Amino acid sequence: MRPVYLDNNATTRTDPAVVAAMLPFFSEHFGNASSTHAFGEHVGEALKKARKQLQALLGAQFDHEIVYTSGGTESDNAAVLSALETQEGRDEIVTTTVEHPAVLTLVAHLEKTRGIKAHLIGVDGQGRLDLDAFAAALSPKTALVSVMWANNETGTLFPVADLAREAHAVGALFHTDAVQAVGKVAIDLKSTEIDMLSLSGHKLHGPKGIGALYVRKGVKFRPLVRGGHQERGRRGGTENVPGIIGLGAAAELALGHMEEERTRVRALRDRLEQGILQQVSHTLLNGDGDNRLPNTANVAFEYLDGEAVLHNLNKAGVAASTGSACTSGSTEPSHVLRAMNLPASALHGALRLSLSRENTAEDVDRVLEVLPDIVARLRAMSPAWAAATGGASALADHV
Amino acid sequence: MRPVYLDNNATTRTDPAVVAAMLPFFSEHFGNASSTHAFGEHVGEALKKARKQLQALLGAQFDHEIVYTSGGTESDNAAVLSALETQEGRDEIVTTTVEHPAVLTLVAHLEKTRGIKAHLIGVDGQGRLDLDAFAAALSPKTALVSVMWANNETGTLFPVADLAREAHAVGALFHTDAVQAVGKVAIDLKSTEIDMLSLSGHKLHGPKGIGALYVRKGVKFRPLVRGGHQERGRRGGTENVPGIIGLGAAAELALGHMEEERTRVRALRDRLEQGILQQVSHTLLNGDGDNRLPNTANVAFEYLDGEAVLHNLNKAGVAASTGSACTSGSTEPSHVLRAMNLPASALHGALRLSLSRENTAEDVDRVLEVLPDIVARLRAMSPAWAAATGGASALADHV
Ligand SMILES: Cc1ncc(COP(=O)(O)O)c(C=O)c1O
Ligand SMILES: Cc1ncc(COP(=O)(O)O)c(C=O)c1O
Repeated sequence: MRPVYLDNNATTRTDPAVVAAMLPFFSEHFGNASSTHAFGEHVGEALKKARKQLQALLGAQFDHEIVYTSGGTESDNAAVLSALETQEGRDEIVTTTVEHPAVLTLVAHLEKTRGIKAHLIGVDGQGRLDLDAFAAALSPKTALVSVMWANNETGTLFPVADLAREAHAVGALFHTDAVQAVGKVAIDLKSTEIDMLSLSGHKLHGPKGIGALYVRKGVKFRPLVRGGHQERGRRGGTENVPGIIGLGAAAELALGHMEEERTRVRALRDRLEQGILQQVSHTLLNGDGDNRLPNTANVAFEYLDGEAVLHNLNKAGVAASTGSACTSGSTEPSHVLRAMNLPASALHGALRLSLSRENTAEDVDRVLEVLPDIVARLRAMSPAWAAATGGASALADHV
Repeated sequence: MRPVYLDNNATTRTDPAVVAAMLPFFSEHFGNASSTHAFGEHVGEALKKARKQLQALLGAQFDHEIVYTSGGTESDNAAVLSALETQEGRDEIVTTTVEHPAVLTLVAHLEKTRGIKAHLIGVDGQGRLDLDAFAAALSPKTALVSVMWANNETGTLFPVADLAREAHAVGALFHTDAVQAVGKVAIDLKSTEIDMLSLSGHKLHGPKGIGALYVRKGVKFRPLVRGGHQERGRRGGTENVPGIIGLGAAAELALGHMEEERTRVRALRDRLEQGILQQVSHTLLNGDGDNRLPNTANVAFEYLDGEAVLHNLNKAGVAASTGSACTSGSTEPSHVLRAMNLPASALHGALRLSLSRENTAEDVDRVLEVLPDIVARLRAMSPAWAAATGGASALADHV
């Protein structure tokens, strides 16, 4: 049986059309972007096209607002550090408790080593930002506000356009980690006040090892990686030509599939969620019911270990995750779910199922076929379940 | 006619065998390194193998001394910044005037913004380090010594193993930018005291967008890019799986071809140089005659503009460079050749011809066929040449 891939928020399959677009630039047109000779002949042109393709997906006003990086993490790091260096006299960061480690780890380091003050704004039980606390944290000391566009674990969307305006009202820069949003929801940067935006190729069926940081025209920027004059002096290093071209191809495909994401993928996700909730009792849906990425389902099975569920799903040919890829392997519950104050009974039982345009109705059927049994079997062996329910059957329709 | 590629110090053709090794990891085994499911099944194993392949090329004692990065520039930046952060109470850097911008641009920035003091040690007319000045610059204030293994423009090799010992004698860390050396000369890190070494995949027939920083076991390291726990917490961000695997394959190929580099490639380069010197008068050979990369020829034609020579070579189907790729396009003479105090008559006339194992005797023949004529034609039109020589023929055998 074809295995089912529902771990698209961790990484996506590079679309074969993306690979095909990249291929000629490894061994045929292998020159540098700056080469003047035959081997670089098609390179400059192909890079220009790729930049336009990404610009279109972002709705950026100028293609030179894009700075290519090695991925989402580098983009996030570059944005945070640049803001602190360019916003003289300001040494505070306002961000959230549910950001990716690419922001939170760096911010914690800067607090320790550079005397930066960080305000980590909390979220409610559905993962929605505490807007009052957010407004209260802003001040003339705020150098940067960094709030993700969409959370990687729950898919919850943040009102980044509004938050950007609030940040500007106190003279702060606004950055958004849109690694999970780009390619999944429509983005039109030119109609917002967002100053910087991070994205990562491999989250939208592009290759690993390439990403970008959007830096709005006029926003001062200090490079994280310094060397040659590449990217108009904003990112040193020989351009990752195949990566940039692959990201462009992936962006064009994502734009073409955006409507499908909003409709077919969302419908699949909704059916998956509803099927699980109907068949498995004591299950919570994590995230903002209305305002979420169309592809992400995050459920928590009470009195269970998500890792055990995951392991059994894997054996049944279904790939998923317990949360962020970066922290899986550790037994700590995710910092996102903890920030959402999940009940203790559910905190260890989370399962993230993240779809993409490559998933089919059969994929959803398959999960709905195997998952309830897996949960029932595990709960039947679980002392916590027995203690809490008196040993009731784990299947909803038997309850 | 097949075009001739002699710009391998700028970038190399990704070996088709390298591309073949990478391909399954884009759309088939596309999981993350940490994925526990079927889609990540072969990934962990393939990454382990790739790390061993690179370890072998470097002669590193432990495979976990390798930290993958996005390329040579990031590796250089990471090494310099880490040393400054970990070497408490030390705020000086000793480096050279002929380093790559990946080191020099960062160091200049740190001087301006962080009050670091940098000693830029000069070179002689053959590009050899001023060893007395080097020794004199070392002190208990030295945090880091960073000297390249081989210069990208002239190929001149530096005595890095000796310099590392000298650095250690004053308690400094030693880093070498070996971007041009790795794959071209034998390296055995375990028999040296080198603490950190930078390399870049696309300089050794691997892909662009991947590099590595060797960090000797026991050397304290602070990450440049912070996020998840990848690379044992030394470099955040989803691993560039195809890139790492491609670099491994490239490393294995380079090791297999090392002897060929030392013999056949060197012989081709020597014949190319001798042929040029014999046929074209008023030509200087730049770099250390004895102690150079086997693949690099850097010649300077007096009273000529290297860009014009390059342009005409391109039209004749020969790809080369006037110096470092990062500064071509600008009309400034290279900082390396200026540091070598080339005579003013030769400073603008440099041409770098950099070979690889993919070059053939026919490639050299072709250059020797077209280059002397190009130089003669250009000199015939050059007022500087006329003034200096009284209009003598530009061909050596006519002089
Ligand atoms: C000596 C040297 N160091 C560093 C670099 C930078 O490597 P990359 O462009 O792959 O970042 C290069 C190549 O441009 C180089 O020749
Ligand atoms: C929200 C978010 N930000 C940043 C990242 C980091 O991206 P990358 O791993 O490509 O560097 C990820 C993915 O892991 C993510 O989900």
